[in-house]
Amino acid sequence: MSRTPKPLIRSNIAYSTPDRIVVRGKDLPNEVLGHMNLGDFAFLQLTGKAATREQSAMFNAILITLVEHGMTPSAIAARMTYAGAPESLQAAVAAGLCGLGSVFVGSMEGACRMLSEALPDAQHDARQDGQSGAALAELEQIARDTVAAYRARGASVPGLGHPLHKPIDPRTPRLFQLAAENGMSGKYVKLMQLIGAEAERVSGKSLPINATGAIGAICCEFGFPWRIVRGFGVMARAIGLVGHIMEEGEKPMAIEIWQRIEDEASAHLREG
Amino acid sequence: MSRTPKPLIRSNIAYSTPDRIVVRGKDLPNEVLGHMNLGDFAFLQLTGKAATREQSAMFNAILITLVEHGMTPSAIAARMTYAGAPESLQAAVAAGLCGLGSVFVGSMEGACRMLSEALPDAQHDARQDGQSGAALAELEQIARDTVAAYRARGASVPGLGHPLHKPIDPRTPRLFQLAAENGMSGKYVKLMQLIGAEAERVSGKSLPINATGAIGAICCEFGFPWRIVRGFGVMARAIGLVGHIMEEGEKPMAIEIWQRIEDEASAHLREG
Amino acid sequence: MSRTPKPLIRSNIAYSTPDRIVVRGKDLPNEVLGHMNLGDFAFLQLTGKAATREQSAMFNAILITLVEHGMTPSAIAARMTYAGAPESLQAAVAAGLCGLGSVFVGSMEGACRMLSEALPDAQHDARQDGQSGAALAELEQIARDTVAAYRARGASVPGLGHPLHKPIDPRTPRLFQLAAENGMSGKYVKLMQLIGAEAERVSGKSLPINATGAIGAICCEFGFPWRIVRGFGVMARAIGLVGHIMEEGEKPMAIEIWQRIEDEASAHLREG
Amino acid sequence: MSRTPKPLIRSNIAYSTPDRIVVRGKDLPNEVLGHMNLGDFAFLQLTGKAATREQSAMFNAILITLVEHGMTPSAIAARMTYAGAPESLQAAVAAGLCGLGSVFVGSMEGACRMLSEALPDAQHDARQDGQSGAALAELEQIARDTVAAYRARGASVPGLGHPLHKPIDPRTPRLFQLAAENGMSGKYVKLMQLIGAEAERVSGKSLPINATGAIGAICCEFGFPWRIVRGFGVMARAIGLVGHIMEEGEKPMAIEIWQRIEDEASAHLREG
Repeated sequence: MSRTPKPLIRSNIAYSTPDRIVVRGKDLPNEVLGHMNLGDFAFLQLTGKAATREQSAMFNAILITLVEHGMTPSAIAARMTYAGAPESLQAAVAAGLCGLGSVFVGSMEGACRMLSEALPDAQHDARQDGQSGAALAELEQIARDTVAAYRARGASVPGLGHPLHKPIDPRTPRLFQLAAENGMSGKYVKLMQLIGAEAERVSGKSLPINATGAIGAICCEFGFPWRIVRGFGVMARAIGLVGHIMEEGEKPMAIEIWQRIEDEASAHLREG
Repeated sequence: MSRTPKPLIRSNIAYSTPDRIVVRGKDLPNEVLGHMNLGDFAFLQLTGKAATREQSAMFNAILITLVEHGMTPSAIAARMTYAGAPESLQAAVAAGLCGLGSVFVGSMEGACRMLSEALPDAQHDARQDGQSGAALAELEQIARDTVAAYRARGASVPGLGHPLHKPIDPRTPRLFQLAAENGMSGKYVKLMQLIGAEAERVSGKSLPINATGAIGAICCEFGFPWRIVRGFGVMARAIGLVGHIMEEGEKPMAIEIWQRIEDEASAHLREG
Repeated sequence: MSRTPKPLIRSNIAYSTPDRIVVRGKDLPNEVLGHMNLGDFAFLQLTGKAATREQSAMFNAILITLVEHGMTPSAIAARMTYAGAPESLQAAVAAGLCGLGSVFVGSMEGACRMLSEALPDAQHDARQDGQSGAALAELEQIARDTVAAYRARGASVPGLGHPLHKPIDPRTPRLFQLAAENGMSGKYVKLMQLIGAEAERVSGKSLPINATGAIGAICCEFGFPWRIVRGFGVMARAIGLVGHIMEEGEKPMAIEIWQRIEDEASAHLREG
Repeated sequence: MSRTPKPLIRSNIAYSTPDRIVVRGKDLPNEVLGHMNLGDFAFLQLTGKAATREQSAMFNAILITLVEHGMTPSAIAARMTYAGAPESLQAAVAAGLCGLGSVFVGSMEGACRMLSEALPDAQHDARQDGQSGAALAELEQIARDTVAAYRARGASVPGLGHPLHKPIDPRTPRLFQLAAENGMSGKYVKLMQLIGAEAERVSGKSLPINATGAIGAICCEFGFPWRIVRGFGVMARAIGLVGHIMEEGEKPMAIEIWQRIEDEASAHLREG
C-alpha cells in the first residue's frame, strides 16, 4: 500500500520550545497571562486574532449565554456518569457534552446556517447595517423567500419560538442591545428580525427570536462559519457541566434519580 | 422495592421562569451579559460568588494556561473523531476530553491534593504569606516530611519537573508573579516552593515547579477542593479542542495520520 | 411550571427482584447463561425475541464483520485516550466510539435506509426472493429509479465501492452466501445487487457492493429499522476497541504517535 | 526536538490487502464468518487464540451477564444523550459507557485484582482445584490474610454483598456451576469462596459473593490480567445500551425525566 507523496502535517495553532510556549503567535506567559480574559483567549485560539474591545464584549456575552441552562438532559447525563466514575471527572463532562446535538445547543447552528446561506455576500461587509432603503427592501425579500422555503418543506424556521420563554426570550433583546453597542448589529441581525416578523405574519403565531436565533445572527456578523458555531455551545457548556459535577459531589442527586426511574420503569414487569 | 421517604432533588445553580433566567442568584441577561467575562462567569458558576478583581485576574490566568498545549493526544483524538463524524462536533470534543486523566491534565489535582492534605488548617487563612520566622520553619518541616513520604513509597512528587521545559517551566514564574500581584501568594505557594527546593536537594536533580504545580498551589490559595481542580483543565481544554476541530475542518490531517499509522502498524503482518 | 398529567415511565427490557434477574422475559441465570451465545443475547436484548438458528447464524456474522478493521481513526482515538487516562478504560472505548458517524461505520445505515425506503412494503414478506418474473421486473425498475435519484442530486449510492478492496470486497460474497443459506436472501438483497449493477452500468465504473451494502441489505431482510443499524457497528466496535486497548497496554504506540505528530505539525512554527 | 531513533509502530491484531481481511491470523470472511459466534470472536480479538469449547461457553456466559442491568445510571445517561442528539447514536452509547468506572461495572476489576495479587503463582496452573489438603490450608491462610488486610485499612472486600440480591446473588451459583462444568473452577474460584466465608465470619454479616466477585474469580482462572477485566463489562454494556436507545427511539422517556427533575430541582429557587 505504498502512497506517494505523503502530505505534510501542519498546524498553525501553537508550539513549544524549552523556554517558550507560543499560541497563535503570542507568547503565552508574557503576552497572554494577565493580559486577557478567557473569552478573549478563546477568540484568539479560534480565529488567530486578538479580539477588539467590541469583539471581546460580544464574544464573552455569547459564550456566557451558553454556559448554564439548569438541569438539562446534558447536566443529568453528566451527573449520572459522575456517580459511576467519580475518579474520571473528565468522562462525566464528556458524557454531558455528547448530547449537544441537533435537538439541544447544536440547533444553534441552524439559524447561523440559514442566515449565512441566505446572505452569502455579506460575509465581508458585516458591519453594514441594512438600514438603507434599497438594502432593507432586499432583506425583506430574502426574509419572505426564506420563510416560504421552510414552510414549503414543512420545516420550522430555526431560531424562533421557545417552549418556556414567552412572549419573549429575555436573552434576545439583551444580546441584540450588546450587538448594537458593539457595532455588530448589521445585515444578519436585521435579516433574522425580518425573518421572525415574516414567520409570525404567515403563521399567525407568536414566534419570538430565541437565544439561539440571536446568537446565530451575531455569529454571522462575526463572520464565523456556521459549522463551528455549535462548538461555542460545547465549550461554554463544558464550564457549566463542571459546575454541576461540583454540586453533585457535594449534594448528590444521581442515585436518587436512578432509583426512582428504576422503580417506576420496571414496576409493570415486576408486578406483571 | 418501596423506599421511604424519597429525598428531595435540589440544585442551587439556576432556574428559569417565562421572563427570567437566573444563575447563582444573578439575572443572566441584565446582571451578567455585558458585565462579566467568561472566566468570571465560570467562577460564579462554580463558587456561587462573584469574583473580586484579584480573583478574576488570577482565575482567568489559570484557565487560559490550560486551554492549549499543541498537538496533544487529546487534540489528536478529537481530530480523529471529527474525521469520522463531522456532523457531531460535540462528540469530537467529548472524545478529546476523555483522555484528560491521571497522566495528562488530571495530574494537576495531584499537587493540589498534596498541598491541601499537608496544610489543611490554612484553608481559611490562605492570605497569610508564611513569611514569618515561625511559620516558615513550620512550612519547611512540612516540606521535608512531604518529600520524604513520597520518596519512601517510591513516588514522584507531583507538580515538579517537565520533559521539555528545562531548566524552568516558563509558565511558573509568571503564574506566581500574578499570584503575588493579586494577593494569592500565601502559605500554599510558599509550601510548593519549599517542596520543590527540598526535592531538588535530596534528589540532586533539577526539579523546577511546572505549570500544574503552580496551578495546584494557587488553587489551594483559592480554597478550591482538590477534587474539582481537574475540572478547570477539562473546561479550558474544551475551548482548545474546538480550535483544533475548526482547523481540522479547514486543513485536515486526520486521514493522513490514520493512513501512515495503518501502513506502518500492519506492515509486518502483510509482509509476513 | 405545573404539568399534568405526568406520563408514566416504562421500559420493557429488564427487571430485578431479590432472587431474580429477568431480561426480555427470560430468567438470566437459568434460561440464558449457558444456553445462548453473545450474539444471540444481543438479538434478544434488541428485539425481545429469541433468535432462530438461522437468525443466530446471520446476526452473529453481521456483528463479527463489524468488530475489527485495523488501525482505524477510532482505534487511534481510543489508544490516545488510554495513554492519558489508563485508569478509565471505559472512557477510552467511549472516545473511540464517538467517531463512528457519517463517514465511518455510521455510513452503514445509508444502504439500509435507501433499501427500506425504496421497498417499504416488503418489510413483512422479506423471505420472498424477488426471483419471479414480475417481481424481478419491478425490482429492476426500483433499482433504476433509485440510482437515477442519487445521480440527479450528485450523491454517491451508499454501499458501493471501496478504496482498498478491489475488484470485490471479500466480505460481501461470504455475507450473501450466509444470507442464502439462512433464508435471508430476499427482495432487499436482490435489490441491492440490482442497484449495484445499475450503478456500474450508468457510471461505467467498477462499483462492487461493499460490506456496509451487504449488511444494510441483510438488516432490511431482518426487518430492523434503519435508525438502529448504526448501533450494530457501535456495539461490535466496542469489542474491537477493548482489543486495541489491551494491546496498547502491553505494547504502547500512542506516545510515539503523539511525538511524531507534534514534531511535524509545529516544525514550521518553531523554525519560522 | 530531534529524537532518535523512532520506535516502530506495530500492531498484531489485523491487516487488510485488496482481497483479504485477516484478524488474529484468521481470514475473516472464510475462517470466521459462519464459523464463530460473537463471544468467541471477542475472545479471539482479545487473546489471539481460538476459544476451546469450554472457554467459549464460559466467556459467552460472562459477557452476557454484563450486558443488561435495567435502568442503570449508564442507561439513563445514554437515553438523555440520545434525546439531544438522535443523529449521533454512537455518542449516546459513548456517554453511557463513560460512567462504567470505580462504582459500577469497573468495580469488577477489584475482585480480579485482589485474587491475582493474592495468588500470583497460580496464573499458570489455573486448572488445579485447590481441593487437596495442603493446598486448601494454604488458600485458607491466604483468605484470612486478605480479609484481614482489607479490614485493617477499613476497606470493603470487593466482590461481596449486594444491595438488592439477598441472601444470594442469583448469578453467582450459576456462574460457578458453569465454571465447574467447563474446567474453570480452580484455585481462584476456591479462594474467592474462602474469602467470602472468612469475611462473613469476621464481620458477622451476610456477605454473599456477587456477580462481580464470581466473574473476577473466573477471569483469574482464564489468566486475564485484571487491568482488562473492566473492558468485558464495557463491551457487553455497549450491547445493552443499544437496546435502551432502540427502546428510547420507540417509547421515549428522557424528556419526561428531564422535566420532572428540572421542576423539582429548582422549585425552591423559583419559589424562593
